[in-house]
Amino acid sequence: MSRRDLDFLLFEWLRTDELLDRDRFAEHSRDTFAAVLDLAEEVATEQFAPHNRTADLNEPHFDGTKVELIPEVATALHSFAEAGLLAAPLDEAVGGMQLPLSVFNGCMAWFHAANAGTTGYALLTMAAANLLSQHGSPEQIEQYVGPMAEGRFFGTMALSENQAGSSLADISTRAEPQPDGSYRLFGRKMWISGGDHDLSENIVHLVLARLPDGPAGTRGISLFLVPKFLLEADGSVGEHNDIVLAGINHKMGFRGTVNTAPVLGDGAFTPGGRAGAVGYLVGAENRGLPVMFAMMNEARIGVGLCATALGYTGYLKSLAYARERIQGRPLGAAPTDDPVPLVQHPDVRRMLLAQKSYVEGGLALNLYCARLVDDIASLPATESADQGQLLGLLTPIAKSWPSQWCLKANELAIQVLGGAGYTRDHDLELHYRDNRLNPIHEGTHGIQGMDLLGRKVLGDGGAALGLLLTKIRATGVRAAEAGGDGLAYDAALEVACDRLAEVTGIVGALGDQGAMLAEASAYLEATGHLVVAWLWLEQWLTAHGSTGDFYDGKRAATAYFFTRELPQALLLLDQVAAADGLTLGLNPTSL
Amino acid sequence: MSRRDLDFLLFEWLRTDELLDRDRFAEHSRDTFAAVLDLAEEVATEQFAPHNRTADLNEPHFDGTKVELIPEVATALHSFAEAGLLAAPLDEAVGGMQLPLSVFNGCMAWFHAANAGTTGYALLTMAAANLLSQHGSPEQIEQYVGPMAEGRFFGTMALSENQAGSSLADISTRAEPQPDGSYRLFGRKMWISGGDHDLSENIVHLVLARLPDGPAGTRGISLFLVPKFLLEADGSVGEHNDIVLAGINHKMGFRGTVNTAPVLGDGAFTPGGRAGAVGYLVGAENRGLPVMFAMMNEARIGVGLCATALGYTGYLKSLAYARERIQGRPLGAAPTDDPVPLVQHPDVRRMLLAQKSYVEGGLALNLYCARLVDDIASLPATESADQGQLLGLLTPIAKSWPSQWCLKANELAIQVLGGAGYTRDHDLELHYRDNRLNPIHEGTHGIQGMDLLGRKVLGDGGAALGLLLTKIRATGVRAAEAGGDGLAYDAALEVACDRLAEVTGIVGALGDQGAMLAEASAYLEATGHLVVAWLWLEQWLTAHGSTGDFYDGKRAATAYFFTRELPQALLLLDQVAAADGLTLGLNPTSL
Repeated sequence: MSRRDLDFLLFEWLRTDELLDRDRFAEHSRDTFAAVLDLAEEVATEQFAPHNRTADLNEPHFDGTKVELIPEVATALHSFAEAGLLAAPLDEAVGGMQLPLSVFNGCMAWFHAANAGTTGYALLTMAAANLLSQHGSPEQIEQYVGPMAEGRFFGTMALSENQAGSSLADISTRAEPQPDGSYRLFGRKMWISGGDHDLSENIVHLVLARLPDGPAGTRGISLFLVPKFLLEADGSVGEHNDIVLAGINHKMGFRGTVNTAPVLGDGAFTPGGRAGAVGYLVGAENRGLPVMFAMMNEARIGVGLCATALGYTGYLKSLAYARERIQGRPLGAAPTDDPVPLVQHPDVRRMLLAQKSYVEGGLALNLYCARLVDDIASLPATESADQGQLLGLLTPIAKSWPSQWCLKANELAIQVLGGAGYTRDHDLELHYRDNRLNPIHEGTHGIQGMDLLGRKVLGDGGAALGLLLTKIRATGVRAAEAGGDGLAYDAALEVACDRLAEVTGIVGALGDQGAMLAEASAYLEATGHLVVAWLWLEQWLTAHGSTGDFYDGKRAATAYFFTRELPQALLLLDQVAAADGLTLGLNPTSL
Repeated sequence: MSRRDLDFLLFEWLRTDELLDRDRFAEHSRDTFAAVLDLAEEVATEQFAPHNRTADLNEPHFDGTKVELIPEVATALHSFAEAGLLAAPLDEAVGGMQLPLSVFNGCMAWFHAANAGTTGYALLTMAAANLLSQHGSPEQIEQYVGPMAEGRFFGTMALSENQAGSSLADISTRAEPQPDGSYRLFGRKMWISGGDHDLSENIVHLVLARLPDGPAGTRGISLFLVPKFLLEADGSVGEHNDIVLAGINHKMGFRGTVNTAPVLGDGAFTPGGRAGAVGYLVGAENRGLPVMFAMMNEARIGVGLCATALGYTGYLKSLAYARERIQGRPLGAAPTDDPVPLVQHPDVRRMLLAQKSYVEGGLALNLYCARLVDDIASLPATESADQGQLLGLLTPIAKSWPSQWCLKANELAIQVLGGAGYTRDHDLELHYRDNRLNPIHEGTHGIQGMDLLGRKVLGDGGAALGLLLTKIRATGVRAAEAGGDGLAYDAALEVACDRLAEVTGIVGALGDQGAMLAEASAYLEATGHLVVAWLWLEQWLTAHGSTGDFYDGKRAATAYFFTRELPQALLLLDQVAAADGLTLGLNPTSL
């Protein structure tokens, strides 16, 4: 990661200092922000990065009973907790630091970049703690959130099942109510990251399951807290709950994060003398999915941050290599002339500038969304309605855009190194393998497209989109006023905004739901490119009038994105507008 | 691979039967073509595919002295040789079968798809044998080509050095002439696939090196045959030559093909009592690079075939999964409705149809180029000038286009499977990792762009490009005559051809070589998309009037490519035409 860029985005562009004037963040200062960013860089660099390759080469092992990880993982996570980072984003009321998410994501970028696999355990724990702190009962908060914030308990999100990956409606794990108000759960989960390990005293699984009388589909799913070990009255860890692993999954990348297939209630353990995993309802019956999805925004923004950070570190490593590695000569040089660094070749610069435009654009997108979260948390509800709408609209983009383009950045980083990039002597191939997960988990690319177009755009009659377009156009106007290249950037954004609005109208008028969503992925990608172009123009404006390499780089990447990338959005919108039904009407037997 | 598609491309479209009327191929028949394709499918499926994952999980091991491979590799390659496939493309005069390359590439596609790593050894051997059969002395041919065609000797192409990857001008391995007409070589090579193993009695290294008085740069490089073991007078294997390994490289994929760092002449062995690797000049002094590059066309087309086959098998596997795997419901279905196969979801169909357009397009491109090779080999020189020009022009595209887009196909294949695709339980992640090599070796993507634009297009004043455009336009005219969608396809091709010609003129007029080649990669990608659109239209025409799923699929993929892909070529050409100098003029310190 680049601290210079983080400081630019957080303090020069987003003016994160403004948050200090709000009650929620009044305990902080510019100094505490800087200190936590320093600390994150230090812990990530010293405790996480050194075992990134080791963890990849020595993936978790399951011997049929327990999962073994290399010891560096526990040490690193202990440092993370010791630094107070697990508690950092939580409310003070539950023992947290109440750090703005925008600053915290700046911290987390260091960890994803250093070691995405080990960071996974921390993320899951924070997500579970955050959910419980907002939706758990006071007793659940007291018993579980504190230990999670301290790193004594870790968490999971146990949603998927083998027959129900993207289709949560088909979840079949069942929860039987007990006379004491608890539940017993029975079923099999799949793709559960961090589903078992010895990193913590306990593991707090947040499990989606059905009540016996729950309606079919997504309206009949409830959320349960299922601890690996039941708690004694004093909060200490007691009996083993009836949840064990059927096995673990072996992945292409992200190997450090153990991915598991847990089994609940098959009698491997018999808490209280009988089979069934003891669970406690979180929130209301049959309302599990809305609760889970309330947290999904932040989880999805987190995936986007991981994708961005993996792209970012790949960019910086390929840039460093291109500056040092001497090979080849400029066109027209004599064979007796000295060879030059790779970065002197225009095609290498192309690959570096493309990466820069993706990873710095992705980081801007992520921090912008995090700032919306901060605004929603710190402004009166009456003043943050716009931010709520924008956040909902931008979330599928914040998840999917970096997952697509920062993976592309990793592909280019490998290419900059050539054969060396294809070897395991360098990190690039590892980042590329890790990053390939991000378009899949927490809602696939296709799911994000339907979420954006179906729910977030058409679902509110285009209101949120209208708000976004107003903001984009306003940036364009400021750029035009600044003059120079800003005039062309404004014009390009105007064209793209007009076309997006027009095409949205065309799609909305198609009537048939299938036809409306058939090109949802193209719509998602087009909107994503427009949004990132807008955020590049925001950066260009922030850099306007400043001189020096750093600001020149921002200007060059803006130029790159507007000339090489933004035009692709218009092609995709043409495709959406054509609504030719090619994939919708295709007879699958002809494939 | 799909035999149905191979038969369509070879016999319905390319009319490979026509080759039987030419002297060179007169010994063959439609039946022998079918028989060798059957044999390839059988050997690939039974001997190569079963150990593809095993070889990935148990990569070659170097103990400091020798390389150990899993035994299945030798067994498979023995079967390959036994089937006569090593000899198949060679001339009868050197013991070959003189099989048309178009048919042979149809065979090789099965092997790449089954196990790209093991196939690598065969490919390298065939390439070396082919080179020697055309440029070696009669004695070299007698001593080496026969045993290579039988699989007793394997081959390598030892070009790169650590300081000279893409920049062959910097090769520093030196060759000292000896009184007996042989040479002694001293130096270190890098990235040499198949550089040592026990798969064969001997290894025939084709090594680029410099004579003491050779001029600097690429005009001072000579080619040498350096056997691992020197031959006795009777052709049997004798003393160990002074070539050993400094180590092997550990890669992201393509792990089955050992990649090595050979050292020549450091005295590990002392043939004839002294240090120095004994080598024999192939061709003329200082003419090593032109000889090597004469073979490079076929090697690059071979890389394109590998990329295509990896994409193709990924497509078929993700299609099979999407047809079987039940998950989710159509939009608007009730939660109590039965879930449906993945292939029923339009976004899954999008990912499958995109893959189909890439992999079948890539295969058409490969077989078209192979047919040009066959024409050049079988027609009188006076009748094959056009084919020679076209082949030279299309080679960088045949190498780079599938390397880019069939890698994309593998990315989509993983996405079709979702989380399952990210695991090592399925082949998709392996194909993706393997395929990531193809944009790098045998000339990187950037090198192909400069070859196309600098050498093949501008280098002959646009003559070859003019020939290509004439052929493309002629196909368009036929499509327009066929009517229906053909009218729109013709119009789209016309627009793209006009624009490519126009933009080529703009670039050619830039004057400065650096400015002309700054956007060479974009030019390469644009031209590639136009060429593949053309070949889709050729397939559409071939399918025209035929009914049934297979032909409907060809029509759907043509529609996909023309509506979703071809427009990207025009964007890229706009970028080339703008010649904004963004990467050329970029100050690297601002990156």
